[in-house]
Amino acid sequence: MVHIVGISGSLRRASCNTGILRALAKALPTGHTLDIVVPDLPLFNSDLELPQSVKDFRARLKRADAFIFATPEYNYSISSPLKNALDWGSRGDADGNLFNDKAGATVSAGGMSGGMRATLHLADAAVYLNLHLLNHPQLPLKIFENPSPFDKDGNLIDEKAIEAHKKLLEAFLTWHTRIARK
Amino acid sequence: MVHIVGISGSLRRASCNTGILRALAKALPTGHTLDIVVPDLPLFNSDLELPQSVKDFRARLKRADAFIFATPEYNYSISSPLKNALDWGSRGDADGNLFNDKAGATVSAGGMSGGMRATLHLADAAVYLNLHLLNHPQLPLKIFENPSPFDKDGNLIDEKAIEAHKKLLEAFLTWHTRIARK
Amino acid sequence: MVHIVGISGSLRRASCNTGILRALAKALPTGHTLDIVVPDLPLFNSDLELPQSVKDFRARLKRADAFIFATPEYNYSISSPLKNALDWGSRGDADGNLFNDKAGATVSAGGMSGGMRATLHLADAAVYLNLHLLNHPQLPLKIFENPSPFDKDGNLIDEKAIEAHKKLLEAFLTWHTRIARK
Amino acid sequence: MVHIVGISGSLRRASCNTGILRALAKALPTGHTLDIVVPDLPLFNSDLELPQSVKDFRARLKRADAFIFATPEYNYSISSPLKNALDWGSRGDADGNLFNDKAGATVSAGGMSGGMRATLHLADAAVYLNLHLLNHPQLPLKIFENPSPFDKDGNLIDEKAIEAHKKLLEAFLTWHTRIARK
Repeated sequence: MVHIVGISGSLRRASCNTGILRALAKALPTGHTLDIVVPDLPLFNSDLELPQSVKDFRARLKRADAFIFATPEYNYSISSPLKNALDWGSRGDADGNLFNDKAGATVSAGGMSGGMRATLHLADAAVYLNLHLLNHPQLPLKIFENPSPFDKDGNLIDEKAIEAHKKLLEAFLTWHTRIARK
Repeated sequence: MVHIVGISGSLRRASCNTGILRALAKALPTGHTLDIVVPDLPLFNSDLELPQSVKDFRARLKRADAFIFATPEYNYSISSPLKNALDWGSRGDADGNLFNDKAGATVSAGGMSGGMRATLHLADAAVYLNLHLLNHPQLPLKIFENPSPFDKDGNLIDEKAIEAHKKLLEAFLTWHTRIARK
Repeated sequence: MVHIVGISGSLRRASCNTGILRALAKALPTGHTLDIVVPDLPLFNSDLELPQSVKDFRARLKRADAFIFATPEYNYSISSPLKNALDWGSRGDADGNLFNDKAGATVSAGGMSGGMRATLHLADAAVYLNLHLLNHPQLPLKIFENPSPFDKDGNLIDEKAIEAHKKLLEAFLTWHTRIARK
Repeated sequence: MVHIVGISGSLRRASCNTGILRALAKALPTGHTLDIVVPDLPLFNSDLELPQSVKDFRARLKRADAFIFATPEYNYSISSPLKNALDWGSRGDADGNLFNDKAGATVSAGGMSGGMRATLHLADAAVYLNLHLLNHPQLPLKIFENPSPFDKDGNLIDEKAIEAHKKLLEAFLTWHTRIARK
C-alpha cells in the first residue's frame, strides 16, 4: 500500500499537468492512494512565521511514501509554483526536507518540448533533496499538438498516453519497492 | 545613462543577495540608476486577473534598459521568488516578455557553491527570455565563509568582493552599450 | 564579410548535423564564408605534445569571425566529438581559448528531442568560453520523423526547415554585427 | 562482494581525478574490488568497426556491478574523455548500454567549483543511461587550494578528504545493496 503525493506545478483550473495527475489517480491499482496537491502557497520567505497554508501543505507531504511531480515548463525551467513547493517542502519546521530519501517520478505537459527542459531542472533539485527519481519512461506531452492529448478542461484523453502513464505508474511502484529500506 | 533594474531572488529582510544589489547601487558611476526590486508577489497563475502588485512590478521592469539578477541557490536551483519574478515578468499583459533583447548580468550569494548551480538555471531561462547575459566575471559569494563577506544585515562588507563587483558593473555597462541596437 | 567556422558534433559520413552545416553553407549570402569542420581529433589530453591534427584544427578556428555548432545529442548531452573540439579549441597553445568573445549559434538534429538537451549543455560551456550565443531561433530537427527532414546521406531536404535555417543565418549575421566591438 | 569500475575523466598521468579513484581503491573494504579505467580511446564514431581498444573497454565495463565516475570540469562540463567513455559504454555491440540499471557515484576534482557543474551534466546523462546515482555526499575537491588536497602526482593526501571519501564509499555500497534487484 503506497501513499503517493502528486504535486502539480500549475495553479490553473484547467491545467494539463494537474490533468495528468488525475489520469494517474484513476489508473492507480487498488489499495494505493494518490493525493493531488495544487500548491497555492505564499511565496517562500524564511523570515515569515510558517503560514497555516504551508503547515497544511507540509502535513500532506509528511504522509507521503513517494512523490510524483507534474511539471509544466515556463521559461525553460520548472514553474514558480513547483519551485515554491520544493522550497517550502524542504524546510520550514523541525522535520526539514520532507522529500529526503523518497522515491520520485516526473511527468510533464508543455509547449514545444513537452517539459523536457523543466524536467532536467527538477532532476538537479532532486539531487540536493535526496529524492530518488525514476529515470524512465520519460513521457513529455505536447499540449498544442493537433489533436491535443488533452481536452479543454485539462483532462488527458489520449488513449496511448494514458496507457503509457499506466506503465510509468507500474514502473514507479516497482522502483519504490526496490529502494525501500528493508 | 543606463537605467538598470536589479531583481533580488530573496524576500528576506537581511538577504545577502539584496545586499549585493545595494553594493552595486553604491558603486554605480554617476548618471546611471539602479532600481532594486524585491519581488514579493502572488504566486504565478495565468488564471488570475493581473494583481495590482504584479502590474506595479511590470511597470518597474518596463523602465529598465538592462537587468541584474541577484540569485540565491535553493535546492540546486534559483529561488522561488526569482523564478516567480521571471514568470510574471515574461507574460501577463500585452507587452509580454519584458526581458526580451536586453542585457543582463547575474550576481549571487549562497551556501557551499555560492550560487553557481542556480546561475546555470538562470542562464537556461535567459535563452528562452532572449536576455543577453554577461558571461564574465562570475562572482559567487560564499555567505558562510569565515569571515563572511557579509555583515548580519546582509551588507556586503568584503573590500575585495566590493571591488570585484565594481569591475563587473563596468564590464556590464560596456556589454550593454555593445549590444545596444544602433 | 564574415568568416564562419561550423563545427559538426558527429564524425559520421552521413551525419545529419554535418548536413545542416552544408545547408547553411548553401544558404549563406554572397561574400560570407563557412568552413565546415568535422573534428576527428585525438582525445583531449594536456600531457600530449600538441598533435599536428589539433594544430591544424586550431589554425582553422583562428580564422573564424564567428562559430556555428551543429550538435547531436548523445546520452542527453553534447557528443564526445563536439566536447573534444571545445576542449582542444579552448587550450593547447599560447592563443588559449579561440572562442573567446565571438558570436556563436547552435543548430541540432537528434532523436526524440532534436538535440534540445545537448543545446543546453553547449550553452553552459559557452558561458565559460565567453561565446555570445544567439538565443533564437532554436531549430531542433527530429531525424526520425516520418518523413525525415533528411535524406539517407544526411542532406537537409525539408524545404520549411531549410527556410527556417536561412532565417537563423540572417539573425546570426545581424547578431554578429551587433556585438562586434567598434 | 561488489566489483566496481571506476572511470577517470582525465588521461593525464598525474590526474587528480584518477588520484581520487586510487584513494577509493585503498579505502575499499576487503572483498570488494575496484578496477580503475583511464579511457584512452578513439573518438566516438558509430561508422567505425568497433576498435579493439573499445572492445577491451566494454569488456571491463561488462564485469561491473557498479560504477564510480571521477570527473574533472572542462569548460563547465564533463571532460571529453569522460563523455567519450559514456558514449562508447552505451553502444557499440549487441549488449548496448552497459550502465543500464546499475548504481553509480560521482567524485570530482577541479578548479574553482571543484567540478560541481560537470557533475550536474553527468547526472543529466545518467537519466538517459538509467544509472542510479548516489545523491550524497557530494565532495567536490578544489585542486588549487593552498595547500592542495593533492600532491604533484595527483595523489589525494588530505586526511579529511580521504576520510570523507571513505564515508562516500560506505554510502555507495549501501546504496548498491539497496537498489539491487532481489
